[in-house]
Amino acid sequence: MYNFEYQNPVKIIFGKGEIKKVGINIPTGAKILLTYGGGSIFKNGVYDQVKASIKDFDVVEFGGIEPNPRYETLMKAVEVVKKENITYLLSVGGGSVLDGTKFIAAAALFTNGDPWKILSRQAPVLDAIPIGAVLTLPATGSEMNGGSVVTKAETKEKLSFISPKVMPRFSVLDPEVIFSLPEKQVANGIVDAFVHVIEQYLTFPVNSPIQDRFAESILKTLIEEGPKVLANRNNYDAAANFMWSATMALNGLIGAGVPQDWATHMIGHELTAYHGIDHAQTLAIVLPGIMHIKRDQKKDKILQLGERVWGVLDGTDDERIDETIRKTVGFFESVGIQTKLPDYSVTSETIDTICTRFKNRGYKVGEKANIGPDEIRLILEDRL
Amino acid sequence: MYNFEYQNPVKIIFGKGEIKKVGINIPTGAKILLTYGGGSIFKNGVYDQVKASIKDFDVVEFGGIEPNPRYETLMKAVEVVKKENITYLLSVGGGSVLDGTKFIAAAALFTNGDPWKILSRQAPVLDAIPIGAVLTLPATGSEMNGGSVVTKAETKEKLSFISPKVMPRFSVLDPEVIFSLPEKQVANGIVDAFVHVIEQYLTFPVNSPIQDRFAESILKTLIEEGPKVLANRNNYDAAANFMWSATMALNGLIGAGVPQDWATHMIGHELTAYHGIDHAQTLAIVLPGIMHIKRDQKKDKILQLGERVWGVLDGTDDERIDETIRKTVGFFESVGIQTKLPDYSVTSETIDTICTRFKNRGYKVGEKANIGPDEIRLILEDRL
Repeated sequence: MYNFEYQNPVKIIFGKGEIKKVGINIPTGAKILLTYGGGSIFKNGVYDQVKASIKDFDVVEFGGIEPNPRYETLMKAVEVVKKENITYLLSVGGGSVLDGTKFIAAAALFTNGDPWKILSRQAPVLDAIPIGAVLTLPATGSEMNGGSVVTKAETKEKLSFISPKVMPRFSVLDPEVIFSLPEKQVANGIVDAFVHVIEQYLTFPVNSPIQDRFAESILKTLIEEGPKVLANRNNYDAAANFMWSATMALNGLIGAGVPQDWATHMIGHELTAYHGIDHAQTLAIVLPGIMHIKRDQKKDKILQLGERVWGVLDGTDDERIDETIRKTVGFFESVGIQTKLPDYSVTSETIDTICTRFKNRGYKVGEKANIGPDEIRLILEDRL
Repeated sequence: MYNFEYQNPVKIIFGKGEIKKVGINIPTGAKILLTYGGGSIFKNGVYDQVKASIKDFDVVEFGGIEPNPRYETLMKAVEVVKKENITYLLSVGGGSVLDGTKFIAAAALFTNGDPWKILSRQAPVLDAIPIGAVLTLPATGSEMNGGSVVTKAETKEKLSFISPKVMPRFSVLDPEVIFSLPEKQVANGIVDAFVHVIEQYLTFPVNSPIQDRFAESILKTLIEEGPKVLANRNNYDAAANFMWSATMALNGLIGAGVPQDWATHMIGHELTAYHGIDHAQTLAIVLPGIMHIKRDQKKDKILQLGERVWGVLDGTDDERIDETIRKTVGFFESVGIQTKLPDYSVTSETIDTICTRFKNRGYKVGEKANIGPDEIRLILEDRL
């Protein structure tokens, strides 16, 4: 394996009834900005539990952070933070609310001009307001990492930044929040977590059996437990296992010391930016194309995925790779996520637009940084 | 799974050549006590690498921390810490040096009488001197947890304490340190890490597939990579995988949200206290006895271990349990660790002594706290 550094100080508070611990994990005297999204927390009881837990604090609320959180919205929150002298951010929502809150945390203390530079130019995040999180949707892994993805509506740009400064101080993971989730959000969460693992696993071998087996452990658990959650939203055990899988999928552990890909995400972000397609749906579209077009480069790991996760043992290498792609596509579709561009009314015109954008950016993606506009065209044409 | 809290802020710096990063991870101006053991660090080049890295610091050295570090020795280090106004402890050695350094860190700031109470009465550790670590022997997992085991020579007591305050701020894991290790230490390390996993896995099912599969991942990796390290000490990849396995075996992750046993350790500590048997050897002796005597209580997990780790698929449940015990014993013996009491010249007299000691203590051990003097007698008699 490669040399690596790994540090993840996020405190995880996991289990039913644990939202009551939010207050005791925030420093006494903090002035809190409670951030949330479209308001589902008012229906599922999470808001009431959180408010009861922080009743001794001075709290300002900022709702309406949208899926694919927008720079424009978040900058309004930054104004509130400054005006109200907020000292602690409490994100109550899914990955979008938390990603947005991370940007607010960094932008509020950014002193080097427009905070958009944190995303567009990877300007360093020297400080950030501390964040606590109550997760209401397992999917992105944002609850145990320092990553954030933000969209600028004006220019249709969806960009990310990573900083240890915006890792939550604590994240409360109560699997009961899953009981009231709509099917589509659960399905998206399953696929999102699945592809997070794949991005850190389906590259090339570097003799890293712990990382490989941990990755396969998460994939197998998502494949087993995900459908149970979809079949019965009140299955607490399945909800808990799904939730812990999604967190473990992107907290840095399985990616430590191994090559990483992330091309599926980079290309998928463009489909969200131009067509508003759900993040997980874009991953389900792009990944099979990458597996097909990069089948030679990824051969050893695709065969290993097929054998250890899908039980694909027979046939030539190419047949096994085809079958592994089929099984992966079949899993996405079995949870209700379509995997072809026409399923989302996307035509070849968008492929041109995306390829032009990558051409203008001038960099290539993937674990060998060899996926540029030409390869992206092949990948997306495979999904027509 | 059970509700749990999990937080592990230790920074891991992993890979060849990384010892040079020690200095940049210690706060400028710190006055360092460099702790070490019997002096192997002078022969394998680790001492020179560490000293080069901390050349800008004021450093005092304290060597001679023994395997199963002794309270009596450590209290001498505490005197040095106080006299020299030490502000940072740098442990350069294996688990014993690091466990001892953790006790020094806590004892030096203990204000409630004799620091032995931290072990004997689990007196709370309110503060500790910060610790950095350079690991020279993969085994105990101490490099990424807050646990410490200390022995009082005077009373032949081997006791432990756990506190987040003594978690290392950073641990450097350079697998090259394994190149010069004697066979016995490698073998001990393999068995120690293996049994750490078992203590958090071989209990009863609570529907925790991530924790189970991660545990099995570590066991399978130890079984594969351990013998490679023994066969060729200069196999860097095998050394790296062994080292990362040992760290992951006891950093809290696989034990989060699941029942834990630790009876093998508790009983094994007595064999070390009375006979000076190596820690890992005591585990290899005791574990098969526990698997045999607690075969009903642990049935589901022993069968799962047999199936997923050892490929034991055929026969009645009892036959499969017997075969799983045989495979486990066979593995320990294959790396050169004997598993019976007579192999270490221990007779039934010691069994009486140990049972009396547990009787006097008045508590029972194991995941259901139902292993008392009578059960311990059966377990140890099984190992005669």
